[in-house]
Amino acid sequence: MLKSLFLNNPNEIFNIFLLHSRLRDEEVEGVKAYAKAHGSRVNNLKISDESFNEAPVLFHYTREMYFRLLAYKLLPEDLDRILYLDPDILVINPIRKLYDSDFDDYFYAAAYHDIVSIKEINKVRLYPYKIDAYYNSGVLLMNLELLRKEADEREIYRFIEENRQKLVMPDQDILNAIYAKKIKDLDEKLYNYDTRYYNYYIFASNGKYDMGEIINKTVILHFCGKKKPWQKRYSGKFHSLYKHYEKLAESE
Amino acid sequence: MLKSLFLNNPNEIFNIFLLHSRLRDEEVEGVKAYAKAHGSRVNNLKISDESFNEAPVLFHYTREMYFRLLAYKLLPEDLDRILYLDPDILVINPIRKLYDSDFDDYFYAAAYHDIVSIKEINKVRLYPYKIDAYYNSGVLLMNLELLRKEADEREIYRFIEENRQKLVMPDQDILNAIYAKKIKDLDEKLYNYDTRYYNYYIFASNGKYDMGEIINKTVILHFCGKKKPWQKRYSGKFHSLYKHYEKLAESE
Repeated sequence: MLKSLFLNNPNEIFNIFLLHSRLRDEEVEGVKAYAKAHGSRVNNLKISDESFNEAPVLFHYTREMYFRLLAYKLLPEDLDRILYLDPDILVINPIRKLYDSDFDDYFYAAAYHDIVSIKEINKVRLYPYKIDAYYNSGVLLMNLELLRKEADEREIYRFIEENRQKLVMPDQDILNAIYAKKIKDLDEKLYNYDTRYYNYYIFASNGKYDMGEIINKTVILHFCGKKKPWQKRYSGKFHSLYKHYEKLAESE
Repeated sequence: MLKSLFLNNPNEIFNIFLLHSRLRDEEVEGVKAYAKAHGSRVNNLKISDESFNEAPVLFHYTREMYFRLLAYKLLPEDLDRILYLDPDILVINPIRKLYDSDFDDYFYAAAYHDIVSIKEINKVRLYPYKIDAYYNSGVLLMNLELLRKEADEREIYRFIEENRQKLVMPDQDILNAIYAKKIKDLDEKLYNYDTRYYNYYIFASNGKYDMGEIINKTVILHFCGKKKPWQKRYSGKFHSLYKHYEKLAESE
């Protein structure tokens, strides 16, 4: 992810925040050196075990799930916005326009995958919370300034207590259930292209959004789902491209 | 093809020979400038219409088909070897080792696609010429020095006269029928990877030769067949990678 971000944004200087609770110092130093070699900077934000002590922890999820939901409390106060990115991502075009998106008083900007079956499943699953779109939280632009002013973390804790049984992807579910109306739509084909749905996107665009369009216009390819392109036996339309970037990243 | 060659061989200076009969000067100048910008050089070798006048011309093939077969007569005498490359190729790793291969008294080095059905079809088609392997002439390392001494172009003309009806891909057929014993085997997985047979290669290698191996080890990906990755509606395992290189080539 980082390699593709750097390569396709050669004139940007990135100020990266690495939130974690248990990375070793030498691991963090490795990431720092890597970013520095590309002219960017990593800020090490180790979150202590005492944080979120009042927060409920789900049985197979950890404290880290709150890092994304409560980033606005953890990041330096002089940051007014930040872009969260999952690691199973390739950034294949300039990202500046996304980062500079207007928030129009929304807390977040994100994309939802407009695949009929996904929307329906989540609507039923998270009932009675009204879900018109189920946003994917793997690419999440955060309006830190507004969140600091208006968001309330107790709303999150309360939601978890009441919905323990229902949650599949807790942080993403929470985001959708509590903040659905506070999320601005991003174009999924540009900013959160789900690599599993290549044929669907082509079909839905009447053939227009083909491989050439993707490579030239899509900013973020997201390898959603259980099977990841760094694993053996993965198969998919963007496998060769992923492995290409992996090679570039490893050859440094 | 050129962009991928330059990108993945950043420390090489290529001396490229462009054999043609009808490119316009400004087209040749475009290629020259492109190569120069990458530190390499293109030699313009315009072949006059009077060449090969004694050679038979098949109805839907042109004089250009002789350029590959008779390159040893057309190229400067001080060249002792040259690597011919088809345009439907990506060079994704360093090419030096291939170029420096030992000839061991063979005229050529090439790879054949070891797919049972292909071999059988061509064996029958080119009977009574004995074809153990049907070499693909899209990647062809030429021992110019030895060819000048020992090859005889009349053999080629005679073969064409006698086999007009049988020839499907004339220059490749000729190469295989006349020179089969004079071609040294190259590893197809490294030097002429037929992108149509991804699943076959994986299967034949017991899963070892997967996408990671290809991206890290294969030198030449060859988009054989009628459907090409620059066309609409192409689909294949290396489509995204091809389009990626296309974008890089066009963004200059």
